Amino acid sequence: MLVTGRLTVIGIGPGPEAWVTPAVASVVTDAAELFGYGPYLDRLPGRPGQVRHATDNREELSRAEAALAAAASGARVAVVSGGDPGVFAMASAVCEAVGKGPAAWRALDIGFEPGVTAMLAAAARVGAPLGSDFAVISLSDNLKPWALIERRLRLMSEADMALALYNPASRARGAGAKQAFAVLKDCRSADTPVVMATAVGRSQERIVIQPLADCDGSGIDMRTLILVGSSATRLIDRPGRTPLVYTERFARMPR
Amino acid sequence: MLVTGRLTVIGIGPGPEAWVTPAVASVVTDAAELFGYGPYLDRLPGRPGQVRHATDNREELSRAEAALAAAASGARVAVVSGGDPGVFAMASAVCEAVGKGPAAWRALDIGFEPGVTAMLAAAARVGAPLGSDFAVISLSDNLKPWALIERRLRLMSEADMALALYNPASRARGAGAKQAFAVLKDCRSADTPVVMATAVGRSQERIVIQPLADCDGSGIDMRTLILVGSSATRLIDRPGRTPLVYTERFARMPR
Repeated sequence: MLVTGRLTVIGIGPGPEAWVTPAVASVVTDAAELFGYGPYLDRLPGRPGQVRHATDNREELSRAEAALAAAASGARVAVVSGGDPGVFAMASAVCEAVGKGPAAWRALDIGFEPGVTAMLAAAARVGAPLGSDFAVISLSDNLKPWALIERRLRLMSEADMALALYNPASRARGAGAKQAFAVLKDCRSADTPVVMATAVGRSQERIVIQPLADCDGSGIDMRTLILVGSSATRLIDRPGRTPLVYTERFARMPR
Repeated sequence: MLVTGRLTVIGIGPGPEAWVTPAVASVVTDAAELFGYGPYLDRLPGRPGQVRHATDNREELSRAEAALAAAASGARVAVVSGGDPGVFAMASAVCEAVGKGPAAWRALDIGFEPGVTAMLAAAARVGAPLGSDFAVISLSDNLKPWALIERRLRLMSEADMALALYNPASRARGAGAKQAFAVLKDCRSADTPVVMATAVGRSQERIVIQPLADCDGSGIDMRTLILVGSSATRLIDRPGRTPLVYTERFARMPR
């Protein structure tokens, strides 16, 4: 059998069409079948004859398998992620499915199209909180033990690096962010600037800047991205405007 | 004096126009004055009457100050970064200049437009090497002591996190990447997958995938982005295609 299908994993950014790259827009236009979380698919312009497979957010692996099967049968397939497909999104699930799947899937034409990931959109709302070395951690313990998350938060603090925290509300009752803040208060200065960016780029956008000491996990939901500063993160107050938050480009050895 | 100027720091992505967001393209079109590293400005379409200030890559702070002065005098100004403006780029320098500059600069309308950063474009070329928690470190010791870079590389390895390494060739004679690999060999498995992506998205693009044991810093230049796997990073060989490299979404406590 000649395989003519193609599968592209795309990132449509955090919200507005103005953050969708032309490369991604063109994959969307060309695709015969789109697979993704319903609310992401709803953001994309449709065209007649295009088939959309909307699935729940927790079914990454089975969604990836269904998309690969469609591509293997000859379809031009797009797998849709919010943000960037490689950051806590569908690219890893598609690779995993290829590894576990039939040998024919390894012969498929598979591509990945990068996008604007949520942490960079959130950072851009306030300045440059990720302007020096930083770490990116998911607070979801669906895929790893909470003890590992805590260990990583402590090591990143020992390294004095800024943090971007994804999935702060995926633990039961939003306990993830609350517990993460408790750990961080134990190993970072109380006045460390924290940015909580909810629904960035959408009409419900809400940006909160406050010192770590005041962070208790309230006001956080599944659309929130948390940025935590290092010892080199500064706040610049501005009359009538939100403060700028940035991490200095220069860094010293912590004492 | 009524201040009518505006300054926007934009990220034009790693190379091709298809990775420039519509939001960034529109800032470029609207700007009366563009400030940036010459090769980045050269990538942008021009329009009559638009003034371009091309500067050397090492003059971030003075470039930021010149751009702020132009905005303060009423111009619509764009400060141009490659990739994303908030990742080892101009956003932090602009904030620093505001903090150090005249009080009037704090009243300016200043914005930031995110872009596709090099690590996400590099990751997309091979699959999802940054598909779980990861850290982002610049190997340049222009702005921080090498001892701090080494310390961070060791702590990130203790946390068993994948790495994106920027600026691997900014140390004299490319010693940065060579020294970084020496440190990483000391604390990660010899078969850890490493991706070296040079000039991603441009005609000279070169992607090399090899085990950490074989990495000695050769073949790396200032256009190279290095991705280093964790213990959960896998390689999937494919007939007639480059292997897929991805980090598993699931993670365990390291022993």
